[in-house]
Amino acid sequence: MNKADVVFENILSRKSVRSYTNQKVSRDDLMKIVKAGMAAPTAINIQPWEFIVIDDPKILADLGGVNRAGQMIAKAPAAIIVAGNMDAYKDRPNARDFWVQDTSAATENILLQIEAMGLGAVWTAAFPVQERMDGIRKVLNLPDNIIPLNVIAVGYPDTENKPKDKWKENKLHWNAY
Amino acid sequence: MNKADVVFENILSRKSVRSYTNQKVSRDDLMKIVKAGMAAPTAINIQPWEFIVIDDPKILADLGGVNRAGQMIAKAPAAIIVAGNMDAYKDRPNARDFWVQDTSAATENILLQIEAMGLGAVWTAAFPVQERMDGIRKVLNLPDNIIPLNVIAVGYPDTENKPKDKWKENKLHWNAY
Repeated sequence: MNKADVVFENILSRKSVRSYTNQKVSRDDLMKIVKAGMAAPTAINIQPWEFIVIDDPKILADLGGVNRAGQMIAKAPAAIIVAGNMDAYKDRPNARDFWVQDTSAATENILLQIEAMGLGAVWTAAFPVQERMDGIRKVLNLPDNIIPLNVIAVGYPDTENKPKDKWKENKLHWNAY
Repeated sequence: MNKADVVFENILSRKSVRSYTNQKVSRDDLMKIVKAGMAAPTAINIQPWEFIVIDDPKILADLGGVNRAGQMIAKAPAAIIVAGNMDAYKDRPNARDFWVQDTSAATENILLQIEAMGLGAVWTAAFPVQERMDGIRKVLNLPDNIIPLNVIAVGYPDTENKPKDKWKENKLHWNAY
């Protein structure tokens, strides 16, 4: 398969994986996944992000206590918190609104790389749900300038998971809405 | 190269391409690119998006008149507007805040598929800049429930473009920020 087809097939194969085997995810793999995240585009190249990778079972359990989606995190071998760092905007306060777009693009890179490596993941949202953000902030002792966008649970899938077919031709419009 | 490496290399190779040859982008290719966009994850699977693909030079010129980034759009053979459709939330108004994250993930899928196909693109932001959103709304006659996130200019690169190396090890944190 050529590159365009491999990439397309991987994008279409990505799915939310919510249940994992006990196998650990290596730090080399986790670092490669975060490298994919850091390659996302950002508005005026500000790169307003931090990536907090958790593979300590105690912290995963604490994060799992934060929200309804928590059981997936508590039982995962690893999780990645993608966060915005508002200090990145101290010289460009007008650009601050773009942090959600930038970190969401980084999150998608992470999910696609995870899929490509045979791992599975699920994006559990934090921002803008105040109680979830507060819960994560408390567990990780985050300073005020760090805003958690999400917690991505990561592990080896323990069952086969099928991607959804979300293609709807009526959402593609040619030259007019 | 195995799939994980092809996908990783493509993610790291993606770059903003701002200048294009006159070669048209086929509608088959544009449709495949939008299919990649529609495979992104969305909060509670609401898929709150619309994709408006422009390959009419007159409309591209009109869109190019909207903002400072406009020259790239006016001279591109095609552009894709990724938009949120607020009607998607009529039964789940609390979820509305997630539309930016969902459409940003879709945008990143689009940019990665474009890179994989040997095309080039640049994400020019609209939301939340009111004058840009208003300008796009006017050109495309969008109803109030459709909010444009961005305009992605697409074409065949007319020069070699190098990706930025954005890897910064100090933005990766293990088990604590």
